[in-house]
Amino acid sequence: MRVLGLDPGIAITGFAVINETKTGNIPLVYGCIRTHSSTAHAQRLQIIYEDIKRVIKKYQPEVAAIEKLFFNRNVTNALKVGEARGVVLLALANSDIEIFEYTPLQVKQALVGYGRADKKQIQYMIRAEFKLAEAPKPDDVADACAVALTHLRSRRLNQMMKGLK
Amino acid sequence: MRVLGLDPGIAITGFAVINETKTGNIPLVYGCIRTHSSTAHAQRLQIIYEDIKRVIKKYQPEVAAIEKLFFNRNVTNALKVGEARGVVLLALANSDIEIFEYTPLQVKQALVGYGRADKKQIQYMIRAEFKLAEAPKPDDVADACAVALTHLRSRRLNQMMKGLK
Repeated sequence: MRVLGLDPGIAITGFAVINETKTGNIPLVYGCIRTHSSTAHAQRLQIIYEDIKRVIKKYQPEVAAIEKLFFNRNVTNALKVGEARGVVLLALANSDIEIFEYTPLQVKQALVGYGRADKKQIQYMIRAEFKLAEAPKPDDVADACAVALTHLRSRRLNQMMKGLK
Repeated sequence: MRVLGLDPGIAITGFAVINETKTGNIPLVYGCIRTHSSTAHAQRLQIIYEDIKRVIKKYQPEVAAIEKLFFNRNVTNALKVGEARGVVLLALANSDIEIFEYTPLQVKQALVGYGRADKKQIQYMIRAEFKLAEAPKPDDVADACAVALTHLRSRRLNQMMKGLK
């Protein structure tokens, strides 16, 4: 199972392709797409769309995982994140990739085991899982890794649960 | 000058293609793209993207006009509108169409002459301009017509101003 984790944003879109193997979850690639504020608005969306399509083509993920967002403030920001999220979802749909959404609570529970985990604990888990000296930077990349791992873990859990029935 | 006016939304995206001629502004087409809430989220964005591309291909607008949005409440809504707006902007960019953005205040001033005009006054102006028995429905279609007309009027005003210099 190869999963593409995504954390969309107009300035930075984090992505991570994680390969589930018998010996563990191996990150094939992680990084981010950056667009500059001096670039025309619609062109920034175009860059995000094209780059996500390129990542999909190169690393051939089977499914995608993305955070389900709830904003409680800053509406302008929600509109901008929405625009980036829209073109990312379109790139996935146009590549026939099934999309799974997880709430921040689900990500925390899947990675650290409880819902009030902070960013540092999440980053520590990613470092440990991938055996890295440092957590992926910036935060958007770590978040993309986190949501991809969430998908793999909740999937494995579901399979175990089915086995028990 | 042929302008495509747009009012993006996940459930309803209004569009209008207006042709500026010597005898007036003629609507070539207006209508809306509807997506149903039972359709998968990313597929709804795909429908909007494809349908906008189809409108562009068929009616060949030279530029596009879209409302610049400011939300003061309902962040979830801003996120959803943002997603629809993102794929609409992408469709325009991928079709090499220049995009002009107008604030709600600019639309009101261009159409009715002052910034506190209400929806009914805007709709009356559209009916009068296009010589229609009724204003285009739903509101999203009227709004798409309004922003397209705003572009044509402010452009004409700019040209007049240049002539006076």
